[in-house]
Amino acid sequence: MGMPLARMKGFRRLTKVADALEIVLKESSKVRVGGEVISAENAFGRVLAEDVVSQYDVPPYDRAAVDGYAIRSEEALSASQSNPAIFRVVGTVGAGGGQWKVGSNEAVEIYTGGVMPEGTDAVAMAEDCERKGDEVLVLRAVPKYANVSRKGEDIKRGEVVFRKGHLLKAWDIGVLLSIRMREVAVRSRLKVAILSTGSELVEISDPKALDGWSVVDSTRPMIKALLAQAGCEVVDGGIVQDSLEEIRDRLTKLAEGADLLITIGGTSVGGRDLVPEALEGVQGSRLLFHGIAAKPGKPLGFGLYIGKPLFMLPGYPVSALVGYESFIELTISSITGFPRRERRRVKARLSRRVPTSPGIRHFLRVTLEGEGDGLMAKPIALTGSGLLSSVTKADGMVIIAEDKEGLEEGEEVEVELLGD
Amino acid sequence: MGMPLARMKGFRRLTKVADALEIVLKESSKVRVGGEVISAENAFGRVLAEDVVSQYDVPPYDRAAVDGYAIRSEEALSASQSNPAIFRVVGTVGAGGGQWKVGSNEAVEIYTGGVMPEGTDAVAMAEDCERKGDEVLVLRAVPKYANVSRKGEDIKRGEVVFRKGHLLKAWDIGVLLSIRMREVAVRSRLKVAILSTGSELVEISDPKALDGWSVVDSTRPMIKALLAQAGCEVVDGGIVQDSLEEIRDRLTKLAEGADLLITIGGTSVGGRDLVPEALEGVQGSRLLFHGIAAKPGKPLGFGLYIGKPLFMLPGYPVSALVGYESFIELTISSITGFPRRERRRVKARLSRRVPTSPGIRHFLRVTLEGEGDGLMAKPIALTGSGLLSSVTKADGMVIIAEDKEGLEEGEEVEVELLGD
Repeated sequence: MGMPLARMKGFRRLTKVADALEIVLKESSKVRVGGEVISAENAFGRVLAEDVVSQYDVPPYDRAAVDGYAIRSEEALSASQSNPAIFRVVGTVGAGGGQWKVGSNEAVEIYTGGVMPEGTDAVAMAEDCERKGDEVLVLRAVPKYANVSRKGEDIKRGEVVFRKGHLLKAWDIGVLLSIRMREVAVRSRLKVAILSTGSELVEISDPKALDGWSVVDSTRPMIKALLAQAGCEVVDGGIVQDSLEEIRDRLTKLAEGADLLITIGGTSVGGRDLVPEALEGVQGSRLLFHGIAAKPGKPLGFGLYIGKPLFMLPGYPVSALVGYESFIELTISSITGFPRRERRRVKARLSRRVPTSPGIRHFLRVTLEGEGDGLMAKPIALTGSGLLSSVTKADGMVIIAEDKEGLEEGEEVEVELLGD
Repeated sequence: MGMPLARMKGFRRLTKVADALEIVLKESSKVRVGGEVISAENAFGRVLAEDVVSQYDVPPYDRAAVDGYAIRSEEALSASQSNPAIFRVVGTVGAGGGQWKVGSNEAVEIYTGGVMPEGTDAVAMAEDCERKGDEVLVLRAVPKYANVSRKGEDIKRGEVVFRKGHLLKAWDIGVLLSIRMREVAVRSRLKVAILSTGSELVEISDPKALDGWSVVDSTRPMIKALLAQAGCEVVDGGIVQDSLEEIRDRLTKLAEGADLLITIGGTSVGGRDLVPEALEGVQGSRLLFHGIAAKPGKPLGFGLYIGKPLFMLPGYPVSALVGYESFIELTISSITGFPRRERRRVKARLSRRVPTSPGIRHFLRVTLEGEGDGLMAKPIALTGSGLLSSVTKADGMVIIAEDKEGLEEGEEVEVELLGD
């Protein structure tokens, strides 16, 4: 009963989403992520810490690009159906195999990938030849280097193959191995520590979780899954009670090993802002904003805790999700170079008027009906940001800018699809 | 020198991509993937093996959706600034906490998430109240259930929350935990066995890999990375020599534990189709097609090996990639329900004429220049499908349909972006 009621009246000041993001990105740009050397075979999805320069030519030698006969092109420059060039076949070369030396008017039967024999400079395609015992008739003119993949044609020795900061795709792994790299220097994964606050919360593994009155912590596992998807290493700080001291103790331990900190809940607890308060008087810690002009998502806070960026997500899952997507995901991507998930977008018309509060960015969950040009977005009418079903039942999200004074029925909107 | 030359003249018959895909999907539809029960916290990205029905109401009780005062709404139905309703404040309820019983003209200070005290049915928002010592003045009319999240409002007990076959997103994990599910039945990961063939190949870990004449197996690690990304469990069968017996032995071992089989290379080796030949005379094995009307990607084969679908990818990385993306990825997605990566597409104009062979589907790698309406796609001119740099240097891929007779300079094309 002794709680100060002023806080109950809401946040003193709401920071605009764009301004809040600027503060977050500025502080986060000071985060330095180290590098590590890992096996190239396991580097898919990692970001390069250094330029990659090839130490080898690829292909490492001139090789046949087709099945046929390796010859000296000068001896078949004017070959034709009526005037074939005739060669004596002196050997066979398969992929990667054998090294032959070829003299005048000699040919080697060669298969795709085979090393070009010494003395030869072109391959007459099998389709353009007629084999007669030990001889082959070339029935078409063969220019120099015809059907030959030249040494270094794919990648030259000394060539910068990938730049520092490049995100390695599956085929890039193929390239790293083809230039014979066993190991590669990549940026370390971003270490993100995460912590739930709330005396009412229990872990799903807790026997109390099955009691109808307890509140299972469902937001932290959701955010953990998103962090893992964004390529982060998650340090799980579990649940702490609503106590300034416990919150400080746990955050201090986590701050030591982490690049970023995330708390969930404790930004508006029984009239108190426990996590924001926890920053007070701790060296290297300060609150940079608390309360943003977003709906849902308002109780988001951000600051530094012992020098580490600290995101204070609201405990309610939809608010936490909006906070994660609008701030944390962008921060991770700006620090690591890991690409942000791009959602597909479609245009649709609103099925009804949507009133909004001026100056606030709204995140409207909608279902979609119809298709093509007739696509209709139906707002999901629900009371609170506690309602995860507003996301699971939604097909997409419409972001309504601060300067809009509501949306009209039939108005065209852009819908971010939540399908992936 | 004794190789039969007929094979050198190319494939006897090329199967159209669409026909080939139909064969592949028909055979693959017979694959049955089992289920397994896993922890709900770790179920992100998995596909449900059963419907999920909630055993609980969410929220489990009526709770406050805002900070304020829990009251009996009938006692504040006509409250206003000039005619406030007055209540005696008898207690405080925080998130999830304490159960109070409230009498006539009594109120409980309540915070978002708090359990509604017995006897109350609405919350007067703090903004609409004036607190005076032990009393609170409600200055605005409060309808029944105002600012209350009703029991079961988010999810009702007995409700089907997700259907069998649903792919679990991050927020779905939040939902599973909020309905107090510890474990969930999901489809097992698809087990895909993969094998490279080629006597010339060495593993990157092999000391010979650094010798300039050896060929490092770079295609298998690339396909392994793609399979892992598609949610498969990869069984790595390593490299086998170009020997019918060795290929059969290894495939037979792998077929036992795998749902799908993939070989790389051996579809056109020194004039012989070793892997296709390996199927002959093995019970439950037959070749369904070999050679498709695609460029690159022609030497692709498909069949059954001891009853298991077997994809025979060409050894050349770009051909293998086209084979993977055009057939294997679709097969995995059709069996598991795991969504196919959707590439973003842009429209662009071709910088030059591109001749194509009629009846063949072409996969053209392009770089992009300019932006918006002026976007220009420049074809990458390279000789062979051995050249991975044609993919790594490309910004996108243009798929040219079989019925096109080349593309004209300036023609508008759709480019699949390779960025992700």
